[in-house]
Amino acid sequence: MQMTDLIIKKRDGGELSREELAWFVRGVTDGSLPDYQISALLMAMFLRKLTLRETVELTRLMADSGDRADLSGIEGIKADKHSTGGVGDKTTLICTPLTAACGVRVAKMSGRGLGFTGGTADKILSIPGFRNEIEPQAFFDNVNRVGASLIAQTGNLAPADKRLYALRDVTGTVENRSLIAASIMSKKLASGCDVLVLDVKTGSGAFMKTREDAVELARLMVSIGEEAGVRTSALITDMDTPLGNTVGNAIEVEEAIETLHGRGPADLTELSLALAAEMVHLGTGDALTVCMERVKTALYDGSARKVLANLIQAQHGDHGVIDNPGLMKQPRLNASICAEKDGYLDKMDTEAVGRSALLLGAGRARKEDDIDPSAGIRFLKKPGDAVQAGEPVAHLYSDDAEKLADGTALLRSTMGYCSAKPDLVPLIQARVSREGVEEWH
Amino acid sequence: MQMTDLIIKKRDGGELSREELAWFVRGVTDGSLPDYQISALLMAMFLRKLTLRETVELTRLMADSGDRADLSGIEGIKADKHSTGGVGDKTTLICTPLTAACGVRVAKMSGRGLGFTGGTADKILSIPGFRNEIEPQAFFDNVNRVGASLIAQTGNLAPADKRLYALRDVTGTVENRSLIAASIMSKKLASGCDVLVLDVKTGSGAFMKTREDAVELARLMVSIGEEAGVRTSALITDMDTPLGNTVGNAIEVEEAIETLHGRGPADLTELSLALAAEMVHLGTGDALTVCMERVKTALYDGSARKVLANLIQAQHGDHGVIDNPGLMKQPRLNASICAEKDGYLDKMDTEAVGRSALLLGAGRARKEDDIDPSAGIRFLKKPGDAVQAGEPVAHLYSDDAEKLADGTALLRSTMGYCSAKPDLVPLIQARVSREGVEEWH
Repeated sequence: MQMTDLIIKKRDGGELSREELAWFVRGVTDGSLPDYQISALLMAMFLRKLTLRETVELTRLMADSGDRADLSGIEGIKADKHSTGGVGDKTTLICTPLTAACGVRVAKMSGRGLGFTGGTADKILSIPGFRNEIEPQAFFDNVNRVGASLIAQTGNLAPADKRLYALRDVTGTVENRSLIAASIMSKKLASGCDVLVLDVKTGSGAFMKTREDAVELARLMVSIGEEAGVRTSALITDMDTPLGNTVGNAIEVEEAIETLHGRGPADLTELSLALAAEMVHLGTGDALTVCMERVKTALYDGSARKVLANLIQAQHGDHGVIDNPGLMKQPRLNASICAEKDGYLDKMDTEAVGRSALLLGAGRARKEDDIDPSAGIRFLKKPGDAVQAGEPVAHLYSDDAEKLADGTALLRSTMGYCSAKPDLVPLIQARVSREGVEEWH
Repeated sequence: MQMTDLIIKKRDGGELSREELAWFVRGVTDGSLPDYQISALLMAMFLRKLTLRETVELTRLMADSGDRADLSGIEGIKADKHSTGGVGDKTTLICTPLTAACGVRVAKMSGRGLGFTGGTADKILSIPGFRNEIEPQAFFDNVNRVGASLIAQTGNLAPADKRLYALRDVTGTVENRSLIAASIMSKKLASGCDVLVLDVKTGSGAFMKTREDAVELARLMVSIGEEAGVRTSALITDMDTPLGNTVGNAIEVEEAIETLHGRGPADLTELSLALAAEMVHLGTGDALTVCMERVKTALYDGSARKVLANLIQAQHGDHGVIDNPGLMKQPRLNASICAEKDGYLDKMDTEAVGRSALLLGAGRARKEDDIDPSAGIRFLKKPGDAVQAGEPVAHLYSDDAEKLADGTALLRSTMGYCSAKPDLVPLIQARVSREGVEEWH
């Protein structure tokens, strides 16, 4: 087979066969294909698009390009969730114990975050003593005993995706639905879960700027999952506003714990319950309304909080944080932003909020960067809230005065005020499953 | 400027500004842009197309990416011609003396051929003693004295095109009209001619498979040339059949000399006269019909043959070949293909004829390959000619028995016979100039 022939076929709008895609993924993985030919094919795929069949096959070939996690040491159904990326999104820390408390296992491997804040595996390291790198057998034992475990991803999962993603990032071929779906789902298929719930974000802080694009991406990922034998559903959720009131690492763990105490912000609580209900629904086959009641019970009777405490203890963390979040590292410095006029806090550019958190030290711009676990933002007011001039609307935290000044300046510049309450879109907009797309009520 | 921004702009159908194209060509030339980003942009350009303005600007920037030949040491108007590539095309060897005999100078620099046969600079080296590498001043002196000179291209002409072409070749981005036009015209603009005649081939042996595509390519190149102040016109000519009766190097020089004796094949004579008339027309501004009479006179009164003899002598070659082509190297071996049945020789795959010549040793598959000047093909019959079973239709020549067998087998497999005379298209189909497209009568 010749790479030029594959490129020309796709360039001219043809459909690549399974054999051709397999040959391509092999060449990407073993390094025999040069970057310049791969990037030409990626651009042809971007502009000519991939059919559903091509996307499904490409995903499965990428999932098979490296190790597949073997979770057979864990009893019962294993649920996983994935978010397409949001600012202030700490739902994994809440859904995981909620789902486990309802009897569906969560054996979750998270990547190291490269972005505005750390990933889940980074955030949870804010808990003193917590270990996210543990041996497979201990991981299995923990899930069997506690119901859930959160570890850092190990092994060589979907190496073809790693190479393709790195190239897409520098060749303007990121924002293609098939390529995004294949990238996400190849890693999820390789991670060995039985059921999967996707949180597909839409809005200013998300890849998919419109609801229509988000629904199409969700439909595609659900098709890929179901074709591969993984029960999959998705919620389409708003990312026009950061989720909850905090953005950072320790500060997000604290908010997640508060939420499991029943004292969390309404938006974060609503989304965490909805995602957990989906995970339980797919994992048990019971009606979604029944599952929603179960996860609510697990939240308000404290059983989910108890699972989180056990999970922390099983991974050598100090579970005293459940009642005393102050045990986590505290920031040296803080600053506040105050309302500039009377009125309402306007919608803000969520991406700029994320960049502000990054400037404070909460995230990584490069793989080798260190995260400051105590850096972050706490919103006292969210878009649509009434404010009075001079009233504090956000606190910012950092260990470094210069970073604090930079992050504060950026956040201040993105905050606007208006005299009438701004129109806000609902947080959860739709549900996508193999049965189709449903509005969310 | 960021390369990813340029890629995304073109990917989304935008038009690149002069500054953006200049930055891109600079990065291609100085090596600061990596291949994978260049190839992604090339594929985006291929699929989203370039506007006329982008094509004109890209061409001029590529022409300026290296040296520009300075022909100011040559008096008068300098005409050049370019063929988009054909099999058996030895018209340069004929047009050059025809044009010079009519008073328009031809200071021609030809590239080393990479293809089925050598380029013009390789073919003419078949003449004993001929030198195609001479000092600039001697080159100028020769043109001033003889009216024409044929040398191998020197200097660093259009290096951006070299890198882009090498990448296009391996990334499926060759057959785009704007990119083809920019590649050809950047080299021609850098070579310093005042007027330029293009021979744009169409048919099975050409880049442009249809007449419409060839006309569009010609219109684009004429626009680019005229915009840059070079009077440019083009003939659209058929390449469904090899031109003339020979394919090779020495054998093509011999046929060119025969044509200048007035004994050449009709197709080769017709096209050479037409191209030379165009060159004289653009160079003098005199009416095309008048110029056609002049070049015919120069052919039949022997004055063009005299120019070729002088040109050979000025470049240290043995001009005895004009009357005795046997002075050129002769092949050691030969073979014949005979008609398999009574009827007519059918149309043949011109590209396969070229590959057959390459197998015989007449061309280079890689830059470092040597050419066998005496290898080649002589057709005794051309498509449409009546043949009798057993009658020889082609002789093949090589120094190597294995090459002879391979080349003969391929050529035999492409020759077919039919009982009715096949329909043949006219050799010259249209003329394209700044005035528009005219049918050829």
